[in-house]
Amino acid sequence: MKPTPLTPLNDLDTHALATASLENLYRIFTVPEAPNSTLGAIDKEISDNLMGFLSDRIVARERSLTAIEEDFSNAAIPEVPQFVSEYTEFVLEKLVAHSVHTSAPGFIGHMATPLPYFMLPLSRIMVALNQNLVKIETSKAFTPLERQVLGMLHGLVYERDQAFYDENLHNSRRALGTFCSGGTTANISALWVARNRMFKPSADFGGLAKEGLARSLKHSGYDDVALVVSERGHYSLGKAADVLGIGRDNVISIPTDAQHKVDAVAMRAKCEELKANNIGIIAIVGIAGATETGQVDPLDELAGIARDFDTHYHVDAAWGGPTLLSNTHKHVMNGIELADSVTIDAHKQLYVPMGAGMVVFKDPTAIGAVEHHAEYILRAGSKDLGQYSIEGSRPGMAMLVHAAFHIIGRKGYEILIDSNVDKAKTFARMIDAQADFELITDPELNILNYRYVPANVQAKLAQSSHADQKVINEILDRANKRMQKQQRAAGRTFVSRTRFSQHKYGGEAVSVFRVVMGNPMTTLETLRAILDEQLELATRKRTVQILAEITPLL
Amino acid sequence: MKPTPLTPLNDLDTHALATASLENLYRIFTVPEAPNSTLGAIDKEISDNLMGFLSDRIVARERSLTAIEEDFSNAAIPEVPQFVSEYTEFVLEKLVAHSVHTSAPGFIGHMATPLPYFMLPLSRIMVALNQNLVKIETSKAFTPLERQVLGMLHGLVYERDQAFYDENLHNSRRALGTFCSGGTTANISALWVARNRMFKPSADFGGLAKEGLARSLKHSGYDDVALVVSERGHYSLGKAADVLGIGRDNVISIPTDAQHKVDAVAMRAKCEELKANNIGIIAIVGIAGATETGQVDPLDELAGIARDFDTHYHVDAAWGGPTLLSNTHKHVMNGIELADSVTIDAHKQLYVPMGAGMVVFKDPTAIGAVEHHAEYILRAGSKDLGQYSIEGSRPGMAMLVHAAFHIIGRKGYEILIDSNVDKAKTFARMIDAQADFELITDPELNILNYRYVPANVQAKLAQSSHADQKVINEILDRANKRMQKQQRAAGRTFVSRTRFSQHKYGGEAVSVFRVVMGNPMTTLETLRAILDEQLELATRKRTVQILAEITPLL
Repeated sequence: MKPTPLTPLNDLDTHALATASLENLYRIFTVPEAPNSTLGAIDKEISDNLMGFLSDRIVARERSLTAIEEDFSNAAIPEVPQFVSEYTEFVLEKLVAHSVHTSAPGFIGHMATPLPYFMLPLSRIMVALNQNLVKIETSKAFTPLERQVLGMLHGLVYERDQAFYDENLHNSRRALGTFCSGGTTANISALWVARNRMFKPSADFGGLAKEGLARSLKHSGYDDVALVVSERGHYSLGKAADVLGIGRDNVISIPTDAQHKVDAVAMRAKCEELKANNIGIIAIVGIAGATETGQVDPLDELAGIARDFDTHYHVDAAWGGPTLLSNTHKHVMNGIELADSVTIDAHKQLYVPMGAGMVVFKDPTAIGAVEHHAEYILRAGSKDLGQYSIEGSRPGMAMLVHAAFHIIGRKGYEILIDSNVDKAKTFARMIDAQADFELITDPELNILNYRYVPANVQAKLAQSSHADQKVINEILDRANKRMQKQQRAAGRTFVSRTRFSQHKYGGEAVSVFRVVMGNPMTTLETLRAILDEQLELATRKRTVQILAEITPLL
Repeated sequence: MKPTPLTPLNDLDTHALATASLENLYRIFTVPEAPNSTLGAIDKEISDNLMGFLSDRIVARERSLTAIEEDFSNAAIPEVPQFVSEYTEFVLEKLVAHSVHTSAPGFIGHMATPLPYFMLPLSRIMVALNQNLVKIETSKAFTPLERQVLGMLHGLVYERDQAFYDENLHNSRRALGTFCSGGTTANISALWVARNRMFKPSADFGGLAKEGLARSLKHSGYDDVALVVSERGHYSLGKAADVLGIGRDNVISIPTDAQHKVDAVAMRAKCEELKANNIGIIAIVGIAGATETGQVDPLDELAGIARDFDTHYHVDAAWGGPTLLSNTHKHVMNGIELADSVTIDAHKQLYVPMGAGMVVFKDPTAIGAVEHHAEYILRAGSKDLGQYSIEGSRPGMAMLVHAAFHIIGRKGYEILIDSNVDKAKTFARMIDAQADFELITDPELNILNYRYVPANVQAKLAQSSHADQKVINEILDRANKRMQKQQRAAGRTFVSRTRFSQHKYGGEAVSVFRVVMGNPMTTLETLRAILDEQLELATRKRTVQILAEITPLL
C-alpha cells in the first residue's frame, strides 16, 4: 500500500516540477470542462434528456455483483492523476451502466421517486455554492431558508396561525424542527429529544444530556426505559434504540390488527404493564405510512395513550407525511397534529433528490433538550442551525425542498398524491381480478402487498387447517421469492419483497411482493405488464416444480 | 394555515381540470428547462464560469440577517405552482446573492474548500441517477464503489497489503468503514461501535445493542462510563456522548501543552483515576488536526495508553487525515495506524462537495457491533451497506470521492497539501514580522491563530503579572472580536474567531483569529491584504477607544 516512489528527476529541478504541477492543479479549479469534452457532453445529455440518459446509459440486464466488484477492487489510491475524459468513460461503462434505474415507470418496488427536471439545475446551484448549514458564517441566507422550510412543514402538520410562526420561525431560542440527511436520523433526533426531555435537569440533577443514561436512571428511580411501537415500525427505530443506549430489546413491539394497524388496546395494556414494572416510557411511536404495508396507525387513539402515560408521542410519517398535502386523503392522518414530533422525508413523496429528511416538533422549545455550543461557532444566542442538529457540516438541501414547495405547490402535490393512491387502488382491483394472485393488503394510501397463489391453491388454503396452511405457505414463499429475484434480474420491472405476519394465516409470516406507487409515469399498462411478467415467471420450470410440491396436499 | 380553497369551477368539469393538471405535472418530469430559460441560462453560466458566477452573483457587502429573514418568513406552503423562471429570479436575488462565497481566496476562516470543476458535471450524474446507498437494490454498482472508497481510505491509514483488501473489501461479513454525511456522524459511528464492543454479548448477556446501557452497567459492574479526550477535541465528541447516553460530563477533558497537543502524562493519570473509581473507559480519542489550532496529538503515545487500559482508540482526523497523502508531512500523523478507528472528511481537504464524511476501522469485523437487519432489505448475509450505517437512505456521494482520488491522484493531493502548509507557515512569518500582531499558534499543518496586539502592549504583556495580563487581555478580546465582526461584515475577506486557554497567559482563555489554509487560489498577496485590512480596522474610532483603555496600564 506504500505509494510507488516517483521516478527520480535527474535533469529537472523538482521544485520547478512541483510548481508546474501546482499550475496544472489550479486549472481543475479554474478551467471548466469544454462543452465538447466527454464529461461536458454527458452533462448536456442529462440536461437535454434525463429520461433518455437513464434509459440509454443504464444496462437493463443484470450483471452479477461479483463481476461488478472486480472493477472496484483496487484499494490503492491512484498515484498519478487520470485524465477527466478517461475517468468519465470509466464512470459511464462501469458505474452508470450498472446502477439502478430508480425512476423507471416499471420499478415500483422502492420508495425512490423520479426527479422533476428543475431539480438538476437547482442542484447545480446548490453544489456550486457549497454552503455549510451548520452555521450562518458559511450559509447566510440558507439558514433563514431552512428555518422557513421547517416552518412550512410544521404548518402542514400543526396548522398554527401566522402569528405563531412570526414569533418562532426565526427566533434564535426556538426551532420548529431539524433538517437531517434522511428519515433515520430524523427519527433518531426525535427520540434523542424525547429521551433527554424525560430526564431533564432539576435542582439536584444535571439532566441526561450531561449526566448520561446510567445516572439518569439512578436519579429517577426507574429500573429501565422503553419505546413502544407497532410491530410494523421501521427498522430505524431499533437502530435509534441502540444508538441512544436504550437497547433494541427495549423497543416494545405491539401487535397489529387485520388491517396492519397497531392494536391500540394492546398498546395501552403494555404501557400499564411497563408502568407496573417500573420501566420509564421514553416515547410512543405511531406509524403514518408503514414502510412495508403503507397503513396508518390510529394516530388519535395513540395520542390519548401518550397523554395518559405522560410520555412523548412521535409519529414516523417519513413516507406518508406528504399525504397531508392532499385534501382528498389527509383525513387518514387525523391525530398527527397531536404528536410531539413528526418525521417526514423530502426525498420520498416530495420528489426531492436523496438526502433530505426532516423532523418537526410541536413545541418550539422542545429541541432545546439537545442544544449544544462551541467556542468558534454555535455560540449561545446565535441562529446557527448546528446547535440543534445531530449532524455537523451539512449541505443546503433545504433549498430543493423550498423549490419543490414553490414550483409544484400544494395543489400540484395533491394531484400527484391523489393519482398515486388511485393507481394503487386500481392495481389492487387488477390483482383481485386475476385468479392466481392473492391481495395481501388493500391499500389505504399508495403501498400494497400481494403474492402469487394459483387459484386452486387459494381455494384450498381458505379451507385448510393451520398446520396445512403453514406447509403450503412455506412452498409458496419459495416460489414467490424465486419469481421476485428473477424479475429483478431480468431488469424490465421491479417489485420488492418482504415478509410479515398474516392474521388470516394464524399470525404466521408469509413472503409477499411489495409495491410503492410514487412514479407519475407509471401507467395502468405498466402495471398490467408487471402482472403479465409475473404470470410468465410462474410458468418457469423450477417454479412449476416448487409449486408442484403443493399438489399432494390439494 | 388552512390552505385557501380553490375558486369554484362552475363551467368546467373538475375531473377534466385535474387531468389537465396532471398532464402539466408530467411535464416537470419529462420536459427539460430550455437552454435560454432563466434557469437554463444560470445552469450554463455556472458550467462556463463557476468562479465568475460566485463573484458576480453573491453580493459582497453584508445584508442584515433580519432583513434576509423577511424573505423567508411565510410558513404557508404555496397553494398554486409558481413559474420556474419566476422562482429562479427569487433564488438569485434572495438566496444566491446573500449566501456566502465560501471559495473566495480571501475567505480563509473556515474549512470549506473550493470545488474542482469536474465536481459539477459529476454531481449532476449523481443527482440524475438518484441512487440510494442503503441497499444494493437501489444502488447496485455504487455499493462496490463505496466499499472501494472506504478501502482506499483504510489503505491510506493502515497500509495493509492487497491480499488483506482482496479478502475484506467486498466481503458481506466485513466492512472497512462506513460512509456518513459528515465528520460528526462519523465520530458518533466510531464511538457507537466502541461503546457496543465494550459491552459485547456473552453467555448471560445480550450485549449493549440489545439490552441498553443501564443493564450493561449492571452486568459489567462499572459505576459509569467515560470518554477521554483533549480539551481541544471537536464539539461533536460532546454531542456523541449525549446521543450515545454516555453524558457530556463523562467526556473527560485533558489539558494540552504549550503546543496545544494533549498532555499524554495527564491523560494516563486520568485513566488510572477512572479505573480506580470503577469508571469504564469507552474510548480514548486523539485529535489529528484540531479544529481550532490545527495541532496533532502525540498519536503513538495515546495508542500506548489505549493499549494499557485495553480500550478503543479513536482518532478524529476529520480535517487532518488527508495529510497522509503528502509524503512531506505524513510523519506528523505517526501512530494513526495504531488507532482502532479514524474519521476523515472528504468535504474538507479532499475537495469534495458538502456531505461526505467517513470512518474506517482497523478491524474489518469491528463494525459488526452495530449491525442491524430488516425483513425487506439489509437481510443477513447481504452486502447492503445500510447494515452498518447510522443513516438509512443516503446519496451516492462516495462517487465524488472516487472521482477526486482518480482525477487528482495521490501526487496531486500532495502538491495541494504541501502548498497549503507552506502558505500557513509563510503567513505565520508575515504575522511575526508585523509588530502589531501576536502569533498564537505556530502552524504544524495548515491552521493557525493570531490576534491584534499593538507592539507596546505586547511588550507590556510579557512583563505583566497574571492579574494585569488578565485585565489587558479582556480589553484585547473586545477589540479583536470587534475587528473580526467588521471584517466579516465588509465582505472582502474573512477570518474566523475562537477562544481557548493560553499557557503563556497562565491558562486564561483569549479570543483569537483563526485561519484555515485550504484554498489553492489564496496567494501571498491575498494574505497581505487580509493583514492590511485588519491594521486599517484597528484604526477605527470605536476600536481605538477600546484599546485606549489599556493605556493607563502601560
